[in-house]
Amino acid sequence: MDINTSRLWHRIGNLSRITDPDQPWTRRSFSRLFLDGRRWLASEFRAAGLEPLIDAGGNLVATLEGRDPNLKPIVIGSHSDTVPSGGRYDGILGVLAALEVAQSLIESGERLRHSLQVYDFLAEEPTEFGLSCIGSRSLAGALSSDMLDLIRPDGMTLREGLRLVGGDPDNLNLVRRPPNSIAAFVEVHIEQGRVLENEGIRIGIVTDIVGIHRERIMVTGRTDHAGATPMWLRADALVGASRIIEETYRRALAASTETKPFVATIGRIEVAPNAVNAVPGKVEMNIETRSGDEEAIATFADGLVRDLTPPLKKMNLTIVREQISHVSPTPCSNVVRETIRAAAAGLGLSARDLPSGAGHDGVFISRIGPIGMIFVPCRDGRSHAPEESIEPHEAADGTRVLADVVGRLDATCR
Amino acid sequence: MDINTSRLWHRIGNLSRITDPDQPWTRRSFSRLFLDGRRWLASEFRAAGLEPLIDAGGNLVATLEGRDPNLKPIVIGSHSDTVPSGGRYDGILGVLAALEVAQSLIESGERLRHSLQVYDFLAEEPTEFGLSCIGSRSLAGALSSDMLDLIRPDGMTLREGLRLVGGDPDNLNLVRRPPNSIAAFVEVHIEQGRVLENEGIRIGIVTDIVGIHRERIMVTGRTDHAGATPMWLRADALVGASRIIEETYRRALAASTETKPFVATIGRIEVAPNAVNAVPGKVEMNIETRSGDEEAIATFADGLVRDLTPPLKKMNLTIVREQISHVSPTPCSNVVRETIRAAAAGLGLSARDLPSGAGHDGVFISRIGPIGMIFVPCRDGRSHAPEESIEPHEAADGTRVLADVVGRLDATCR
Repeated sequence: MDINTSRLWHRIGNLSRITDPDQPWTRRSFSRLFLDGRRWLASEFRAAGLEPLIDAGGNLVATLEGRDPNLKPIVIGSHSDTVPSGGRYDGILGVLAALEVAQSLIESGERLRHSLQVYDFLAEEPTEFGLSCIGSRSLAGALSSDMLDLIRPDGMTLREGLRLVGGDPDNLNLVRRPPNSIAAFVEVHIEQGRVLENEGIRIGIVTDIVGIHRERIMVTGRTDHAGATPMWLRADALVGASRIIEETYRRALAASTETKPFVATIGRIEVAPNAVNAVPGKVEMNIETRSGDEEAIATFADGLVRDLTPPLKKMNLTIVREQISHVSPTPCSNVVRETIRAAAAGLGLSARDLPSGAGHDGVFISRIGPIGMIFVPCRDGRSHAPEESIEPHEAADGTRVLADVVGRLDATCR
Repeated sequence: MDINTSRLWHRIGNLSRITDPDQPWTRRSFSRLFLDGRRWLASEFRAAGLEPLIDAGGNLVATLEGRDPNLKPIVIGSHSDTVPSGGRYDGILGVLAALEVAQSLIESGERLRHSLQVYDFLAEEPTEFGLSCIGSRSLAGALSSDMLDLIRPDGMTLREGLRLVGGDPDNLNLVRRPPNSIAAFVEVHIEQGRVLENEGIRIGIVTDIVGIHRERIMVTGRTDHAGATPMWLRADALVGASRIIEETYRRALAASTETKPFVATIGRIEVAPNAVNAVPGKVEMNIETRSGDEEAIATFADGLVRDLTPPLKKMNLTIVREQISHVSPTPCSNVVRETIRAAAAGLGLSARDLPSGAGHDGVFISRIGPIGMIFVPCRDGRSHAPEESIEPHEAADGTRVLADVVGRLDATCR
């Protein structure tokens, strides 16, 4: 069985063009455009020989029945909503790759032992309700009634939003699945980074969806007149913050290994009073650590702050930390990873392990069964931006690997 | 001859209380309150036996005629305008110390050889016209007609402002003085820093009003997704900027000597995109150097940027510099400095040399004759803030030294 690259690529073009014309490529969840995209998707599903429905969680899903009704389903797909400007390939590649795999299967006349379910999960991206991965949460039973009461700025509740897209917020139990109720979930996605492109590798095998740990770090010194305060009387909070920034970079670079990549970022910094002629008295910054290694992300700042407190104290500076959030890493299944590796090798495509630095629906789907992700390169690492770009052969590479993985899992999974 | 400490202290209290009641201690130049303060000052001058007038440059000035009409005048004084909130002692101490010296002289029955002129210079502090030291500029012929056309936000021109306070913008030639036309100018002022308080020293002898050199430094790297970009693929502009900030501090600390203090400050920094989950792609910051050593302030960033360009280039970062402004240092006269030193010693007051990190009217008055400044300690270095605080004996110390300096200069100057 082979996939139809040209059909796949045309579909990607057609769905991406269902966009806010003033801000391509935008199709926000719960919007009129999102519903337009879903209508287009449903008609493509039907043309492929699938019968799509909207489940209680607002997901668009179609099932290709398997030969053995006792086997758990194999689930594939992604999401069709986008962040503002950043939806030319992010999400839709995975939905349309899954549709292409299902359609190619139907056309081949083959029938899998397992049922194959193709998903367009609702609202994977951050929404105006302040929640993401809404559809995949519903499958994992992680969409609480508190969350349904969330209100977006225009006053709509998530409960109403779910109804708007055809979901049924009063019957979420219909969509919820128990642990270990699927054979596997596999998603194709653009890398959103530059590792594959940089190394000329065609397939990324995701090891983990990284955990994300965020803290606030405050450095306090003393605001002084920059003219009237000699260097030796200063307690310059920005100089202390600079030590922390440099040391964060140095330690993260050293802590990252091939098997357990680790990143630490100080991306936001606020200086007070932030005036040309004032010695900075206060700096607040955010440190974010990401890795598949949960202990590493949780404890990184411990050593950093412990070691820098004495030298900063000598400069009359104090450091205060405060945790903002902690999300545990989600490991991908070894079985799925090795299946992806074998599929890529069989197709003659170079492949390497790498973590997913961004979140995905797999974080929630992992609660109901083994997951895996197939990454394809994207130009220059650009993502969540209008410049997001991939080539037709890259979309086809990921889709071929997905088709082969589905075949292999169907042959081996109970 | 001795001064009247209690009279001096009461006057300081009375003038400071002519303030915006909602924002003490505020008496902005060209405001109704400023004119109220000037009216009060004029009546105190008259009570002291002086006849004040407003000159064409908007300065309030009174002259105590000397015995020898061939000698150039000795000039003393400061300013009665304030920055918002920061005028409890800044400026008015120097005006009222000068008035006290003149009044004590009159009361003593002594008559100096030189005429003594007591000035309240117009608008020393930054104004809404975008100009400071307006009155002292007029004496030095540094108030151009371009400047008179400056407009403040409410639409008033500086020309109209000058008329409002009783000046005569069409006859500024009347107030302009040629180089070398005064015997000396001496001003008492609060230190606005912590050097004197820190060392328990009662009198500061100002060596220079420092030069101020400002540059913009831009560090450019590459904005990337903090999750999807491994440490070794990053070009983090904030990490590069941190090296510059630390090295600026380290080098300025090393460059500063007892005889030529030097400070370098990075007080303002803007990071883009400044988001928790983005590797910073761009940092813009201001570096400000101040010293009496003109070459040191002008060339400090040369070595810094030259030495840091290669290591930053290795991190794929570029540095671009741009000069914003350069103001040359104004050295105080050796004769006046040594006279202050002798006066303090004679009065049993500890004294040390130190630069003035802030600007003063002396910058312009130095164009028409030798200048000197007498600093007294202020609490905790607080200035340009409502917390500005000194003790009565500190006001008296500075005023006694000024009186003694006037006597010594009168005896020695031609």
